[in-house]
Amino acid sequence: METAEHARAAHSHQRAKKAIKARYRSAAPQGEGPWNDTIAHMLEHRSVRAYKSDALPDGALERIVAAAQSAATSSNMQTWSVVAVADPERKARLAKIAGNQKHILQCPVLLVWIADHSRIRALGESAGAPVEGLDYFESFLVAAVDTALAAQNAVVAAESLGLGAVYIGALRNNPEAVAAELALPRGAAAMFGLCLGYADPAGASDVKPRLPQTSVFHCEQYDPGRTTSEALAAYDADMQAFQSEQGMAPAPWTTTALARFRNAQSLNGRDRLKAAFRALGFAMK
Amino acid sequence: METAEHARAAHSHQRAKKAIKARYRSAAPQGEGPWNDTIAHMLEHRSVRAYKSDALPDGALERIVAAAQSAATSSNMQTWSVVAVADPERKARLAKIAGNQKHILQCPVLLVWIADHSRIRALGESAGAPVEGLDYFESFLVAAVDTALAAQNAVVAAESLGLGAVYIGALRNNPEAVAAELALPRGAAAMFGLCLGYADPAGASDVKPRLPQTSVFHCEQYDPGRTTSEALAAYDADMQAFQSEQGMAPAPWTTTALARFRNAQSLNGRDRLKAAFRALGFAMK
Repeated sequence: METAEHARAAHSHQRAKKAIKARYRSAAPQGEGPWNDTIAHMLEHRSVRAYKSDALPDGALERIVAAAQSAATSSNMQTWSVVAVADPERKARLAKIAGNQKHILQCPVLLVWIADHSRIRALGESAGAPVEGLDYFESFLVAAVDTALAAQNAVVAAESLGLGAVYIGALRNNPEAVAAELALPRGAAAMFGLCLGYADPAGASDVKPRLPQTSVFHCEQYDPGRTTSEALAAYDADMQAFQSEQGMAPAPWTTTALARFRNAQSLNGRDRLKAAFRALGFAMK
Repeated sequence: METAEHARAAHSHQRAKKAIKARYRSAAPQGEGPWNDTIAHMLEHRSVRAYKSDALPDGALERIVAAAQSAATSSNMQTWSVVAVADPERKARLAKIAGNQKHILQCPVLLVWIADHSRIRALGESAGAPVEGLDYFESFLVAAVDTALAAQNAVVAAESLGLGAVYIGALRNNPEAVAAELALPRGAAAMFGLCLGYADPAGASDVKPRLPQTSVFHCEQYDPGRTTSEALAAYDADMQAFQSEQGMAPAPWTTTALARFRNAQSLNGRDRLKAAFRALGFAMK
């Protein structure tokens, strides 16, 4: 006799197979593995670029930030902060910086994630202690990585609550303007934004296929031979099929990648990012 | 009459209050908020620095990497890779680079997370197409951030399977030696390692307190005034209480932070990180 437990396990197994298939398409690994709802949620992630206007539930942002603060942070230095922007006019100004992405206007809240040396700079000033170590590239990287770890915990937490999210890298188009808009102190710079809200089902997208696991996952040593031209051709075909299904113009991934990194102009103004971050107080020696 | 559903909800609520209290101690926010097991898992995170020798379950690494690949990635460029190191001698050599951290020897597998432009460099070479955009700091940052987003999904997935994890930033003590050990191609560099395995209960640590949420979480604009000297003093006291409970020498957080960033020497050799990454193929213009 089938118990509720058996039914749940069978459902979970089917969900696993479906999620793996959506993520890898023709390159889906055949092996079995452990599975649970947390992993299912993560595998089913898709970026949400169409939002309903509904507000977040009371206390949700505080829980999401608590999850973010629970991510690991190098030596517990916590060199990041987050600014929640809900004011429509401020969101509109930030959207303009970010190439007029309409989902920034739609979503009820935009979180802006900040690499933040300013707390420790302020400590140094008030203690009369040198903090010259902050001027090195390593200390910038610690802040950038810790910001990203925190933000990704926020995404997982938000999605577990039924919310949708999308990262906004285009805030780096003009870091000085973002810093002025958010009144950031010296030694703080926006790494990226994150739209949060309930997805508008009318604008829903599907799980985007990724490169075969063999291409990114290596054993003992890196083997460039695992990214074969056959594997890339199959991925190009999978991506084009996905784009057609979504009503987007199909383009091979390899073509898109080469266009994205062709030259300084293809970076949409971000070829001056280093100068911008230096102006905001990251010397990056 | 109390149903099983009610009992579960009550248990979940208690777990929420306990997790928030452990994470924030004297600064624990009093408000209510939504809650589920995924968020509970994240709030209960602690870094694991003592491992049993047991191997991971079959297929677990493949699921963990699938979760990592499901994280957002800028323009779907997927400029990261991961190398799983299980060979005891290779782990020992990497542990030596990372200041002889014994948990690298103990854990059954060390994942090394790689910012990886090499796939797109190889594409450019085979297509005879320029990829000059990769030479800019922005393109390094995209790879570093995407590597961190992927790794954090891996941590959440691993912890949801009952595994423990700890990041190893000290692989950046000598990026060239790590690259040689892992046979990394040009345009690839280790950002950090990640030990995975079953925690040894004998070496268990508790949830580490973080700064008050008011200090890192801002509304509409950044307000440095939210990090008051009273808040920092309370956090120093909470951290010292935590360290005493763990049998560690108590030190105020503010003192530790100032020591960590005092000068170039306090970075443990990582003051040369920029030169190291440049030598590995990231021009960072």
